[in-house]
Amino acid sequence: MMQVIKYPGRKQWSSVLQRPVLQRAELESRVRSIIDDVRENGDAAIRKYTQQFDNILLDEIAVGKDEAHNGMGIPEDLKLAIGQAAANINAFHNEQIPQAEYVETVPGIKCRRKAVAIEKIGLYIPGGTAPLFSSLLMLGIPARIAGCREIIVCTPADKNGMIHPAILYTASITGIDKIYKVGGAQAIAAMAYGTETIPQVYKIFGPGNQYVTAAKQLIQRGGIAIDMPAGPSELCVLADGTANASFIAADLLSQAEHGADSHVLLVTTDEGLADKVTEQVNEQLKKLARKEMALAALQNSKIILVHKLEDGIDLVNEYGPEHLIITCINEDRMAELVINAGSVFIGSYSPESAGDYASGTNHVLPTNGFAKAFSGVSVDSFIKKISFQKISAEGLRNIATTVITMAEAEGLGAHANAIKIRSTN
Amino acid sequence: MMQVIKYPGRKQWSSVLQRPVLQRAELESRVRSIIDDVRENGDAAIRKYTQQFDNILLDEIAVGKDEAHNGMGIPEDLKLAIGQAAANINAFHNEQIPQAEYVETVPGIKCRRKAVAIEKIGLYIPGGTAPLFSSLLMLGIPARIAGCREIIVCTPADKNGMIHPAILYTASITGIDKIYKVGGAQAIAAMAYGTETIPQVYKIFGPGNQYVTAAKQLIQRGGIAIDMPAGPSELCVLADGTANASFIAADLLSQAEHGADSHVLLVTTDEGLADKVTEQVNEQLKKLARKEMALAALQNSKIILVHKLEDGIDLVNEYGPEHLIITCINEDRMAELVINAGSVFIGSYSPESAGDYASGTNHVLPTNGFAKAFSGVSVDSFIKKISFQKISAEGLRNIATTVITMAEAEGLGAHANAIKIRSTN
Repeated sequence: MMQVIKYPGRKQWSSVLQRPVLQRAELESRVRSIIDDVRENGDAAIRKYTQQFDNILLDEIAVGKDEAHNGMGIPEDLKLAIGQAAANINAFHNEQIPQAEYVETVPGIKCRRKAVAIEKIGLYIPGGTAPLFSSLLMLGIPARIAGCREIIVCTPADKNGMIHPAILYTASITGIDKIYKVGGAQAIAAMAYGTETIPQVYKIFGPGNQYVTAAKQLIQRGGIAIDMPAGPSELCVLADGTANASFIAADLLSQAEHGADSHVLLVTTDEGLADKVTEQVNEQLKKLARKEMALAALQNSKIILVHKLEDGIDLVNEYGPEHLIITCINEDRMAELVINAGSVFIGSYSPESAGDYASGTNHVLPTNGFAKAFSGVSVDSFIKKISFQKISAEGLRNIATTVITMAEAEGLGAHANAIKIRSTN
Repeated sequence: MMQVIKYPGRKQWSSVLQRPVLQRAELESRVRSIIDDVRENGDAAIRKYTQQFDNILLDEIAVGKDEAHNGMGIPEDLKLAIGQAAANINAFHNEQIPQAEYVETVPGIKCRRKAVAIEKIGLYIPGGTAPLFSSLLMLGIPARIAGCREIIVCTPADKNGMIHPAILYTASITGIDKIYKVGGAQAIAAMAYGTETIPQVYKIFGPGNQYVTAAKQLIQRGGIAIDMPAGPSELCVLADGTANASFIAADLLSQAEHGADSHVLLVTTDEGLADKVTEQVNEQLKKLARKEMALAALQNSKIILVHKLEDGIDLVNEYGPEHLIITCINEDRMAELVINAGSVFIGSYSPESAGDYASGTNHVLPTNGFAKAFSGVSVDSFIKKISFQKISAEGLRNIATTVITMAEAEGLGAHANAIKIRSTN
């Protein structure tokens, strides 16, 4: 069922690695009208769309203090699990706090750069049947470490107008108490422009369906920051004959169950492994609850045979996968050769799902080849860096000729004047 | 001529701080058709638009080795100036090389994050009468420090089909030898999608006119990274009665000469200073070559009186200026309170033009309030960070229950399977 492509030449790589094409958003004009409406009519528009799309008559948009309880309705084992995951995510992201930088570039010219948290942050967490509380951990914890002053969450309510208790619990342990019962494009618009109830933020994070994605793209054009461009989730496995076929099959299926548009690749030097993985995928697939979805994803997916692991690494770097598992001889050395990937999992006991939930690394990662230029979410995503300089009269003298010469060569006389006027005083 | 607004209440701040509204790009459809054409027809489209818009019949698109000489036609003092500026920019940006991060979150779970240069980078440098070689320093030096493998420059040629020698000289000292004689939207399209001559890149940097800006926005929607959203340049000065009025006037004018859409603000606690600055602006303006442009910008600009410096800081943070000069008592303490700004200049001898050219800090900064969520260009802009994890069998056992519990609570059975299958083997 996974297509096997044997030893493609380098010129064929780009066509072999083609991802399923994203449909151009024909829904853009609909999403734009929702955004404009929310921008103009605030809470009234929020209520209208929530009734129209989610069939919920919102009483209060904000989750009340009594509703945001501390873990009622959460099984004890899930609380423990969320607790361990949070501790590990915290440990990994704590290493990301940036150091202050300082340098006196010339005597009397003191320059530095300081990391400052983005003041107001909005997190979008999809609702529905599977409450993605893990994404709330992955966004809320680094936002908290960065020191963002205002962190809000928008997430759609269920049919009874309630937020899933696992979301509320996760919010409470990450110290987030501003939660709003809004989903879809209207939630993104509300956070981008503010309503009577929902505060405006400066940067919006989080996964979502095509309406959410389109809304994030549209508000980005208006200069509101977003975490990163979105695309279907993907996994690439690089393996040789030493790899465990049933582990690999389980990993490929864990990616495939995300949705029909997931993209799954196995790059291997070993034809025997390719056969065994195919066999194992067929076998394991039978028992999956989300079998249909995984099956649909596997139609787009490929096994690619390469002559050498080094060719495989080149192919992987051309693809730029969101998740990359490397399981082969010299796997650590191979991992060092990766230049385009979101997150790399090394060895037989490093499945993607460990990083999806609990090893500590972030699971919000660049898809669709965006790993060539973008990083996954980290503390970096929640800060900006401001440069400062303090120049003494002597310091300015030390660069005066340089600035004046360059400004005049660029035809900017007033720039030169700002130096000259200080030299004569 | 600058409008004086006395002691506005906090509720009025957002209207007082309103920037000149950016015209929504009506040129978007024209720019889109240029992009599509370049994407489809490559070099032929580049030649066509270069003839049509710039009236140049391009012989070769790439600058040849004989043309990219080492500073012919550059006065010696300009070479020295560029050399000093480059040394200072280098010194400041060298401090930005990120440290590797490593943490064993749980025994047997080794996680790290590694900075990797974005492999392929495109820099756009506007041409015309004022060759912005300073922007090439500000982009080329951090790209080089980051270790980008392929750095290309697109910049329009003059009427004789030549690139300004100061651009060529700056490229040579930053070690960039791939220069293409293309400007406008067609240059952005060429770098985003590649042509026969111009290689495709993963991230595009640099200033430009409204066509360039619109093209960068459009290719960003396609997932190509850009440095940051663009807007007119701006300067805010926070000052009290201890400040030097003629210095401030010179600084305001240095910003105003950039263009009619520049935005200039003086926030002060001292009415006397406001009067003196106005007087000085009128006086200094007379002698400026770019007087008309500066005058037009000053029409949109404001002097805002506040009761206390602390109010001034709050106002500045609400505005989020690209450039902020602070000249007052306790100026260092005031600077520490800044949370939204691109670059901060502290004290009487720290004019913006020092940072524009030669103090060492970067001059590619977030405008239009984008400083609330974006940083200026730095080495960070040219790297992405990849996370790696290596988990031992023991390490996986240590989080197995957590991952399985969370995956099942999110309804993702195959994610749980990827752990279970490794526990039984």
